[in-house]
Amino acid sequence: MLEVESFAAGQWIAPGAGARDIASAITGEVIARAGNEALDVQAMLGYARDVGGPALRKMTFHDRARMLKAVAMHLMTHKQTLYDLSYDTGATLSDHKIDVDGGIGTMMVFASKGRREMPDGHVYLDGVPEQLGRDGQFLGRHICTPLQGVAVHINAFNFPVWGMLEKLAPTLLAGVPAIVKPATATCYVTEKCVRLMLDSGQLPAGAVQLVSGGLGDMLDHLDLQDAIAFTGSAHTANQLRSNPHLLQRSVRFASEQDSLNASVLGPDATPDTPEFDLFVKEVQREMTAKAGQKCTAIRRIMVPEPVLEPVIEAITARLAKTTIGDPRLEQTRMGALVSASQKRDVLEKAALIGAEAERVFGDPEDFNVDGADAQKGAFVPPMLFHCTAPDLAERVHDTEAFGPVSTIMAYRDLPHAVSLLNKGKGSLVASVITNDGEVAREITMGSAAFHGRLYFNNRASMKEATGHGSPLPHMVHGGPGRAGGGEELGGIRGVMHYMQRTAVQGSPDILSAISQQWVPGADEITDRAHPFTRTFTDLDLGETFYSLRREITLDDIETFAHFTGDTFYAHMDDEAARANPFFPGRVAHGYLLLSFAAGLFVQPDPGPVLANTGLDNLRFMTPVAAGDSIRVRLTVKHKTPRNDEYGEVRWHVTLTNQNDETAAEYELLTMNAL
Amino acid sequence: MLEVESFAAGQWIAPGAGARDIASAITGEVIARAGNEALDVQAMLGYARDVGGPALRKMTFHDRARMLKAVAMHLMTHKQTLYDLSYDTGATLSDHKIDVDGGIGTMMVFASKGRREMPDGHVYLDGVPEQLGRDGQFLGRHICTPLQGVAVHINAFNFPVWGMLEKLAPTLLAGVPAIVKPATATCYVTEKCVRLMLDSGQLPAGAVQLVSGGLGDMLDHLDLQDAIAFTGSAHTANQLRSNPHLLQRSVRFASEQDSLNASVLGPDATPDTPEFDLFVKEVQREMTAKAGQKCTAIRRIMVPEPVLEPVIEAITARLAKTTIGDPRLEQTRMGALVSASQKRDVLEKAALIGAEAERVFGDPEDFNVDGADAQKGAFVPPMLFHCTAPDLAERVHDTEAFGPVSTIMAYRDLPHAVSLLNKGKGSLVASVITNDGEVAREITMGSAAFHGRLYFNNRASMKEATGHGSPLPHMVHGGPGRAGGGEELGGIRGVMHYMQRTAVQGSPDILSAISQQWVPGADEITDRAHPFTRTFTDLDLGETFYSLRREITLDDIETFAHFTGDTFYAHMDDEAARANPFFPGRVAHGYLLLSFAAGLFVQPDPGPVLANTGLDNLRFMTPVAAGDSIRVRLTVKHKTPRNDEYGEVRWHVTLTNQNDETAAEYELLTMNAL
Repeated sequence: MLEVESFAAGQWIAPGAGARDIASAITGEVIARAGNEALDVQAMLGYARDVGGPALRKMTFHDRARMLKAVAMHLMTHKQTLYDLSYDTGATLSDHKIDVDGGIGTMMVFASKGRREMPDGHVYLDGVPEQLGRDGQFLGRHICTPLQGVAVHINAFNFPVWGMLEKLAPTLLAGVPAIVKPATATCYVTEKCVRLMLDSGQLPAGAVQLVSGGLGDMLDHLDLQDAIAFTGSAHTANQLRSNPHLLQRSVRFASEQDSLNASVLGPDATPDTPEFDLFVKEVQREMTAKAGQKCTAIRRIMVPEPVLEPVIEAITARLAKTTIGDPRLEQTRMGALVSASQKRDVLEKAALIGAEAERVFGDPEDFNVDGADAQKGAFVPPMLFHCTAPDLAERVHDTEAFGPVSTIMAYRDLPHAVSLLNKGKGSLVASVITNDGEVAREITMGSAAFHGRLYFNNRASMKEATGHGSPLPHMVHGGPGRAGGGEELGGIRGVMHYMQRTAVQGSPDILSAISQQWVPGADEITDRAHPFTRTFTDLDLGETFYSLRREITLDDIETFAHFTGDTFYAHMDDEAARANPFFPGRVAHGYLLLSFAAGLFVQPDPGPVLANTGLDNLRFMTPVAAGDSIRVRLTVKHKTPRNDEYGEVRWHVTLTNQNDETAAEYELLTMNAL
Repeated sequence: MLEVESFAAGQWIAPGAGARDIASAITGEVIARAGNEALDVQAMLGYARDVGGPALRKMTFHDRARMLKAVAMHLMTHKQTLYDLSYDTGATLSDHKIDVDGGIGTMMVFASKGRREMPDGHVYLDGVPEQLGRDGQFLGRHICTPLQGVAVHINAFNFPVWGMLEKLAPTLLAGVPAIVKPATATCYVTEKCVRLMLDSGQLPAGAVQLVSGGLGDMLDHLDLQDAIAFTGSAHTANQLRSNPHLLQRSVRFASEQDSLNASVLGPDATPDTPEFDLFVKEVQREMTAKAGQKCTAIRRIMVPEPVLEPVIEAITARLAKTTIGDPRLEQTRMGALVSASQKRDVLEKAALIGAEAERVFGDPEDFNVDGADAQKGAFVPPMLFHCTAPDLAERVHDTEAFGPVSTIMAYRDLPHAVSLLNKGKGSLVASVITNDGEVAREITMGSAAFHGRLYFNNRASMKEATGHGSPLPHMVHGGPGRAGGGEELGGIRGVMHYMQRTAVQGSPDILSAISQQWVPGADEITDRAHPFTRTFTDLDLGETFYSLRREITLDDIETFAHFTGDTFYAHMDDEAARANPFFPGRVAHGYLLLSFAAGLFVQPDPGPVLANTGLDNLRFMTPVAAGDSIRVRLTVKHKTPRNDEYGEVRWHVTLTNQNDETAAEYELLTMNAL
């Protein structure tokens, strides 16, 4: 018997007298107890806000990304422990991989994106500066800083590890501490994972706490700096978000609810195409993975009228081969639902759907279970329904049986398919199996506004495609309406859910000080050695080099043209150039200007600058003709450490002519030794 | 007597029997009637959804941007009409300029950003493609498409024109129709503005409707594709957002509420600095503009302890010079509140503040009013309170008297100032007058998470600064907690509030078809003439040119080095280059590769390509040594029309070596004749 503890204000707390029994999904026997009547909710919030938050905010985005990576590596070495515990939730080994490996992988992606896409500092910049005054002495830009409260994560039972980690990774990367409340049915797996994370020694005190059992009145103590992220049923979500205290304080509430996700077979995908087989396989897999307990599972199957019968035949043939049983057995392809009460719920919902659609596969009264007692465990067979009047049906489009249950329906044409898709009134995902870009575009224009994710697959992508049902850390997960109206993940977008975006206005100096990026107009430091002779570490933002001036001769232009082969008429023929709306006459090549600019600032001898790795946002502004002269201003704009040996320096470069007009402007990237 | 009509489903509808009287703020006499008992709310929603939405969605972002510009130009020629009507709201000419010119200017900025920052198409792309599979045949990216419902805008009384236009511009640019419900007290100005917009002939039927009077049960008929944007009091906002129907359907609700905005005088800004005078002027202006009826007005004034007395003296001296009276009089600097009931409300709230702070300026029982009857009009004097115990005070930090009322308090040090700022529990804006970047950074790190906007001003920016109280179309407007937790404006960010963001996954061909941007891996069209010989109009996405191959010789590298002056050792000295972690030995200059690449694809004779205007996202990937040879692949990635003569083509360019390794990758911009 597992005693599932909570981790509150630095202490592990055993379940009290009122704890709830948790049964194995396979045997029905009680295997664990969870509950927390002794929990001090206010102390937990205080610990997160006063201890965890300040510690996390002291770290940079890169520090926190490294922390995530280290935690993920630690979990990776202990994942078998989590697998072993997870069988009793009804899940198979391939389900564990979605949950455990998927959760760790999500953390790894955030660790990597944190290093690559965020600064090694405390302020994340959103967008570019806006010039708000005529002379560039008053600018605006948007910054994101961490919320100063706590994130409360309320998770669903189906993915006790992934469900926690996919919320935790962006939260911690943002710099916000979290209190995790897993669903009680599978909280023993989550609790073990939290223990492993704490054992890693990577998390500062107060960064993560755990509530096994109920939250008590925690939500009534949240405020504007806190955020709730909920995953679960529409019913529970609605109860929570209607809390008057939360509404009154404008507490952020993101909800990710199970929805009536659909998969559409494109009209081009006739039975002789690879797309037809792909569709059948993906439907069968999404119906049976995790015994259909996935918020993204395919609940509605839409196929062109002419292929309805062949699709039903092909899907039922595959479902018939799906071995159900004890997930510890190697031959088992589908395990059990998580609990007897979930089984009751699924059968009730299936009955509602059955009133509008005929069951064409799967009889819950008659199916085989290998190696377990079908009555004691929470087993159900996959069930396929066929709805002949999908335009009139309601339950088919609004009732989610959270198990291996799906309804197939035929559509006449694409507008009809779009109309059926949108009858879900907001879904996490829809998939479309098509090899026709126009089909993809038409469905997108009609249905994207009703979906958080659209997944297209065909012969070109099938080898690499990640699956209809898999939310990826790179892509937003969530959806409008019935799906909850929330968003999670999506790379850095997901991190911003735990940060406040603030518009900042001020002079270039003020904006540079706040953003840790030099902006044009801010102070230039010109009294030091050439910045290319100074190490990454020594360089300060704003260090500036003004080059000597170089005249461009007609001979230079001629030489460059014949050397490179670029004999574009605007460089070669004065009369033809004059007829061009952009040029006053014969002008120098843009690449000649860039090359001469490098000649004006590059230091020939070995030094801290190791390589020029790239160039961004180059714009040619004033044409340069023979007789004009250019000079370069080179300023340190931003620094990003990359490893123990070197870091990336982003330089702001301006080329001006003899009249101080800007000929070109760009950002240069170099790697500089520390 | 004005009969203020509603515009519903294409018809102007007069106020019915139950209409409400609206009095002049100056004379107290009834000047207008508004109400709408005959309004068919469902017909309005249907008209927006079925007529306005489809018409707007058929247009591209550029079409809609041009429409906004034309409407704004039309309003500009009729602004005097709006000024004339607005005096009875209590506003002065300079208040009208904030309202009318500010509203038109906001529309202009969205028109301009729509053309510059959005595509001439139907899908807005958010971020870059993510490679989700090993070989680049399965990608993800995020798209935004317009909501397919209606936006309901519920506006405050204080800015009857700006309040409408700042919501309407992003909504229409997104492609979503709107129903505008102005506050009744000033709806006669809004109604006139709607008539002018309709007269312009630019708006498709159903794009804009108007409710003068109450909304009836409209909110109970909204659904997942609809959005509400509310501006007004925290109390009303909370009532509306608690509507169970809205919560259950996850209807988007953005709230922008008046808040307890503060202004901080930096510790560096002693009385001998320009910042001191700037602060005093800005406080006085923000207290008295629009008679303090601005949701961004300064309600709390925070100054270092040592300068408390001089600041109070200086502010009161300026307030004493603020002439109050009939706004039609030239000498009037401050007009009236909007109504007698607002006056009662302000005096009640001032009394609450008065229980915690001493009134040091302004006596509502004793002040001068020029040219109007102080008893009949809704006049109040500016009132300054001084709170000596701001850490203990509560009303001072949570009670907004929506008039010319503000409270001054002293702070000890920056952490204390941050703590006082954050006692507002979420504000639209705080301003900080400082010439010290470190002061700016410390306040930002402490307070940004509590604010939607931070406004810094000092001697460098004062000539161009746009004012503490002015929300700009470029910057987000809104704030956490007490300020409503919503966001508006912020350039394209504000447009996205009326669009759904959807993650799209699929093969490169599918993503190209959906996004109207060619992505690497998608089909290449190679059977046409060189794309540089084809006009903007003729070019299709994916048209690709493969150049011949060119060998790079040691002589080329030597020549280029001496010609440009770039004799960096990695190009000149094999041994030194080998010691560099990035190079295998002596390599070609990156700019040499770019220049040779141009030589390989440029067409010398006059043709549709007019100029190379820029280059983005250049990354050097594999070094190129003498003996290597390169070739170029050039593909049409994206097209954006710019005017009647030419458009911008964005080319994806890849340089590969003889082993098909990528030497460099970038995007090239050209202007091409139509």
